[in-house]
Amino acid sequence: MAVGTELLLGQIADTNSAWLGEHLATNGVASHFHQAVGDNHDRIVLALRTALARSDGVITCGGLGPTQDDITRDAIAEVMGVELVRNQAIVDLIAGFFEARGRAMTANNARQADVPQGAAVIPQVVGTAPGLICPIGNKVIYAVPGVPYEMTEMFERAILPDLRARMAEAGEEGAIASRVLRTWGASESGLAEALQDRIDALDAPGDVTLAFLASGIEGIKVRITAKARTLEDVSSLLDKEETEVRRAIDDRLGDIVFGVDDESMEVAVAQRLIARGLSFGVAESLTGGLIASRLVNVPGASAWFRGGVVAYDARVKFAVLGVPEGPVVTEAAAAAMAEGAARVTGADVGLGITGVAGPEEQEGVAAGTVFVGLSLPGQPAQTRELRVPGDRERVRQYGAISALDLLRRTLDASTA
Amino acid sequence: MAVGTELLLGQIADTNSAWLGEHLATNGVASHFHQAVGDNHDRIVLALRTALARSDGVITCGGLGPTQDDITRDAIAEVMGVELVRNQAIVDLIAGFFEARGRAMTANNARQADVPQGAAVIPQVVGTAPGLICPIGNKVIYAVPGVPYEMTEMFERAILPDLRARMAEAGEEGAIASRVLRTWGASESGLAEALQDRIDALDAPGDVTLAFLASGIEGIKVRITAKARTLEDVSSLLDKEETEVRRAIDDRLGDIVFGVDDESMEVAVAQRLIARGLSFGVAESLTGGLIASRLVNVPGASAWFRGGVVAYDARVKFAVLGVPEGPVVTEAAAAAMAEGAARVTGADVGLGITGVAGPEEQEGVAAGTVFVGLSLPGQPAQTRELRVPGDRERVRQYGAISALDLLRRTLDASTA
Repeated sequence: MAVGTELLLGQIADTNSAWLGEHLATNGVASHFHQAVGDNHDRIVLALRTALARSDGVITCGGLGPTQDDITRDAIAEVMGVELVRNQAIVDLIAGFFEARGRAMTANNARQADVPQGAAVIPQVVGTAPGLICPIGNKVIYAVPGVPYEMTEMFERAILPDLRARMAEAGEEGAIASRVLRTWGASESGLAEALQDRIDALDAPGDVTLAFLASGIEGIKVRITAKARTLEDVSSLLDKEETEVRRAIDDRLGDIVFGVDDESMEVAVAQRLIARGLSFGVAESLTGGLIASRLVNVPGASAWFRGGVVAYDARVKFAVLGVPEGPVVTEAAAAAMAEGAARVTGADVGLGITGVAGPEEQEGVAAGTVFVGLSLPGQPAQTRELRVPGDRERVRQYGAISALDLLRRTLDASTA
Repeated sequence: MAVGTELLLGQIADTNSAWLGEHLATNGVASHFHQAVGDNHDRIVLALRTALARSDGVITCGGLGPTQDDITRDAIAEVMGVELVRNQAIVDLIAGFFEARGRAMTANNARQADVPQGAAVIPQVVGTAPGLICPIGNKVIYAVPGVPYEMTEMFERAILPDLRARMAEAGEEGAIASRVLRTWGASESGLAEALQDRIDALDAPGDVTLAFLASGIEGIKVRITAKARTLEDVSSLLDKEETEVRRAIDDRLGDIVFGVDDESMEVAVAQRLIARGLSFGVAESLTGGLIASRLVNVPGASAWFRGGVVAYDARVKFAVLGVPEGPVVTEAAAAAMAEGAARVTGADVGLGITGVAGPEEQEGVAAGTVFVGLSLPGQPAQTRELRVPGDRERVRQYGAISALDLLRRTLDASTA
């Protein structure tokens, strides 16, 4: 249950419900209904009563902040038929949080320490609002903040363990887990065709299922889900199916699986650079710093990432990177940028990327055209021309991931 | 009400509800609840009955296709207490659609011609599934396909006119619109206190309301919503309240409003650089290209954005930017980076940012410490030390926005 008038007005999209649905399913919990409701006491109460009538548990996201709009606590207390009690330990925590940032806690912030009688607190770690676990008979309301990273953190730390304990008590244990293979460069229908034999083999109701997830821009995911009595059995079912799926994909579509679960494309690249003891630098025109900003998010990036040059203006390409004066949306420019990136940052491997984000063409080159250059030690720079679909933002995002994928494949090939 | 198990599993995101909420609000229709439900007859019936009990009208999206999963029609008929009747005119339409594409219509497709007795048909224009207008007493269920472009087309063509007729009949015509003021550097509770007088003034049920939105990392938003008989009246109410809100914020918190509606911090910076005819370059350590990649997303950035240096490794700071050898997480390093950024990219204005993303300290400097340097034409570089909360990713994001905000304020101050 998502709380917030901004959701009803379409001012922000509710991404929490989809995230929760996916993670509940992965953990063997069926979600039957999602709801969204505005910042209105009577309607939150009504939505909570509706949800409790048709489900064993309810997760509410949002409405736990410090302002007068934030009334989820009050609504839950009404549904529980209890009073709100101010929890001094939480007040102290919030006060400490403000003190650490050199700011004064306002009176409104203390409202976040109000807890319905009988509810347990999920202490806040990354925000100022604590979460709540509110038992109602043998049912339960979990209340967490609507800010996605606060919500997901509390889900993993507190809600999931509590749900597992409740399931164990109800004799509904059993293990379920998923593994996601991440691919780049194939369509959902192409993957479905490559895996048709596996889908047919698993079609009878059984312990292993396959699904394709196309959400977001980071490629198509193949999710393998397995159910069994113990986690060990689940793990062995997942291992077996992963081998089959990888073989089927590799036979039909080649080396398109770049990672497992949360492994991003930049993690795949980092693993290969580290394994070969290579340092890396990048020169970006089209992507304007996007590749560099992805790479620095890999833990330990300082061991191999030297830095980069964002050569947005042609003069920066000529003066800093040594690109020969002339057209800058060409394979030759990408090659010179790759060599310049390695030289300027003192790295072993350099990557250069130039192209046309659109909507207009540039230097007579069509929007969506991307040139990638790669400079490896002791080799002349290689180049590749790519076509990527979408608007400006999308061309940049796809261009960045495609360039990193090219580096991944090139490093694999040059090892062989 | 969105229908489809894939929504509950998080395999696709429900974008229809946000779209509908926005377009209903724009047309003066308050949406009080969103729901999502899976492809399960009993649960769709329950969700429909719940929705009808608490609202005057319900829009369902999805479950009108040709497969056995598509059971919204059946559920609506049960809620209406009537039979489904096959409509031969629609059968012929669907058959013609298949014929035109040289394919045979399957028996399943004819199910799409089943209409609950007493319902009106919204003829299909872009897909194969017709929509339905189903009166229940003086309430109504609108059923449209879940495919977004089919849904939006039917909403504009059939649902909106029908809703307008119902509102006119009930004497509830009118217009509603919102405007969002975007702020950086204040807490939600601080804003609420600064605006307490406005909130009190608007507290009586009236035509203008204020709300605070803290979603995401881009600062707190203050949303003004106004209702009136005509769009002109709404617009003038919004103008008047915006003036009051800006004055109240400015008096208490200073110059923290950086934009309106979709204007991001980088747009605010771009407007000021363009107004003063200044070009810009950036040197990033901590943020690793994040500032550059935000700036290139501003339409027309090539007119003023030269480029940048991602100086992640200290050697790149020394060799490329001319930072004096020694500690690199200092105000002096940030100043040298700002000057280096302007010099290397040939820009009028240079920004340098260095700091500690964490979790460990670096050079004895605590995680979350950020140093920003700014170099403006004909002036020695200025520096500022900031403290930002959160994990590595968050420190980077907040650091990037805070640095751009500092540039915004500095440009404003140096004009004065």
